[in-house]
Amino acid sequence: MIKVTPGATVGILGGGQLGRMLAMAAVQLGYHTHIYCPDEKNPAEQVTDKISRFDYEDEKALIGFAKAVDVVTYEFENIPVETVNILSRYVTVFPSAEVLQISQDRLHEKKFLNNINVNTAPYAPVSTMNEAIEALKQIGYPAVLKTRRFGYDGKGQAIVRTERDVQRAWQSLNSCEVIVEGFIDFDMEISVLAARGQDGEIKCFDPAENIHKNHILDLSIVPARIDPVLRKQAVEIAHHIVSELNYVGVLAVEFFVSSSDPIFRVNEIAPRVHNSGHWSIEACPTSQFEQHIRAICGLPLGETSLYGRAEMKNLIGDEILDMDIYLKDPDANFHHYGKREARPGRKMGHVTRIFPHILPK
Amino acid sequence: MIKVTPGATVGILGGGQLGRMLAMAAVQLGYHTHIYCPDEKNPAEQVTDKISRFDYEDEKALIGFAKAVDVVTYEFENIPVETVNILSRYVTVFPSAEVLQISQDRLHEKKFLNNINVNTAPYAPVSTMNEAIEALKQIGYPAVLKTRRFGYDGKGQAIVRTERDVQRAWQSLNSCEVIVEGFIDFDMEISVLAARGQDGEIKCFDPAENIHKNHILDLSIVPARIDPVLRKQAVEIAHHIVSELNYVGVLAVEFFVSSSDPIFRVNEIAPRVHNSGHWSIEACPTSQFEQHIRAICGLPLGETSLYGRAEMKNLIGDEILDMDIYLKDPDANFHHYGKREARPGRKMGHVTRIFPHILPK
Repeated sequence: MIKVTPGATVGILGGGQLGRMLAMAAVQLGYHTHIYCPDEKNPAEQVTDKISRFDYEDEKALIGFAKAVDVVTYEFENIPVETVNILSRYVTVFPSAEVLQISQDRLHEKKFLNNINVNTAPYAPVSTMNEAIEALKQIGYPAVLKTRRFGYDGKGQAIVRTERDVQRAWQSLNSCEVIVEGFIDFDMEISVLAARGQDGEIKCFDPAENIHKNHILDLSIVPARIDPVLRKQAVEIAHHIVSELNYVGVLAVEFFVSSSDPIFRVNEIAPRVHNSGHWSIEACPTSQFEQHIRAICGLPLGETSLYGRAEMKNLIGDEILDMDIYLKDPDANFHHYGKREARPGRKMGHVTRIFPHILPK
Repeated sequence: MIKVTPGATVGILGGGQLGRMLAMAAVQLGYHTHIYCPDEKNPAEQVTDKISRFDYEDEKALIGFAKAVDVVTYEFENIPVETVNILSRYVTVFPSAEVLQISQDRLHEKKFLNNINVNTAPYAPVSTMNEAIEALKQIGYPAVLKTRRFGYDGKGQAIVRTERDVQRAWQSLNSCEVIVEGFIDFDMEISVLAARGQDGEIKCFDPAENIHKNHILDLSIVPARIDPVLRKQAVEIAHHIVSELNYVGVLAVEFFVSSSDPIFRVNEIAPRVHNSGHWSIEACPTSQFEQHIRAICGLPLGETSLYGRAEMKNLIGDEILDMDIYLKDPDANFHHYGKREARPGRKMGHVTRIFPHILPK
């Protein structure tokens, strides 16, 4: 157990909006922040004490960074495991390299989940198209081919409805590390943000209902509009996962909710703060960002109950141009990530509405 | 009217906790920030894009700063008016130099307030001890001698209960710019944070009740526990003041509430965000900091209604050592200003508790 007290420096790998909001939470708790990020211009550099602009493979720069900070975390799971290994020789990194390794690879992730009795979609790892066709005979159609690594926002995925779709789907992935996943005909996707402290304390946020548009999260509504029994079950599963991982920090668990499927299945986990938890900034005494910083710094975890019903809307691309509408909306808390160019599909900001008079059951 | 859009840079004079929280609010709205501050180490430098460390009298540095930012504001009213005059030749500064001039001098402030039919304590400007003794014959005892300029947290003030107190009081002030103020036997001090946009739109926060310890704000409770009619009146007076000043930004108005005095009197005004409004970060859709940034940038003002009853406690000096108690309190939102040394009387952080189930009347 390391306790990192205010005045110390929290190092963050990655300079996107998640790094930015992590840095702001760290600052509110009295920490200095130091962002490590290869990108020339990034949203987090506007709020950090120090920035190191180097590649994730630059060992010398990583060592310098590790020596300049008191604890390290990361804002996304696609950094090389070797980066965390190098840093870990000089400074504590949360979440650990082991956790990162599991969550970077859909195969490792599903194996881990099934091993701890958490259900996922049925799946099979394949490395050739013919193996995929064979696996699909077991799993059945429709199904989804997914690259094992580096997928996000619907990238690295292709649906196959019949055997005729397989060739095009296979070629589109351009990878020989693929899993075939049974297609879950879900009614809703929900997610739970779970936090575990260094001392094993665990606190979960209420499950959020996530609505996507063009494979990108559009809306999160909390609490998810499902049977409270299911909500409780989702929280228990998330609790179980962070416990079994000996996890430190905030982890996101995505679930499929399907009225036609009696089994409650986990879609994926992400070892970090998550877009589907941004409402926690205003809707809870402790946000997911503050909770993550508390966990990695060895502070007690904070309260996660809701002040009221909450809705978070992502502002994607040109949607940021509606800024004035949101600024005038009395229920809206507006966040702009400071990115200059509103490219299509780019997350430019978000808006959270809180309805304290609608208290969740 | 200038509209400063996200991506632009907000310049802030002063690097204390108010500058820090202003910078964080600016960042959330998508702005870059640039702090100008003579202090070597300051709480705001941890969250700003750029920092200029120069004296407020350094004309060359001020011009460089003015040219590097798109709008300027300040976190405290004791910067030289000449600093704002220099900056104003190159960039828009809100609040204006005129407002600053009024609020820097208790005499100008009281004259202005009385001119617009706002009541204050009875007062008289004096420049010698004999003048003070003469004035006290009119105003009566007890009374307070106050330096006209640079007073804060009870500094630059001395109570006189009888004529025998005058000599010591006079000498303690060490100034020849003094006002004699009638002592108001108040039951409560309240404050209203009022915001006015460049277009004249005005929005006020609910009046807060302020409780001091050793002349330093200890607690703010909102809404103030007084007759709702008085609360309404206080808001109307604050509204009137920012309107008459053609003010742009957030301004704090402090009132005395006295059951023995039928006249509702303003104690002082401060042309800036204010310690007694920190609860607005969590208790309202728009915080005082965000409201100030919105006003100076020409954005629409935000909603100021309360999510629930709120209490803000300052953490002064060693009180910051109770950090873990606050971190474990499920109702508490903890803020640490990142100052290393917990000197007595120093504002080290604050805690806000929100009670959304106790909705204000």
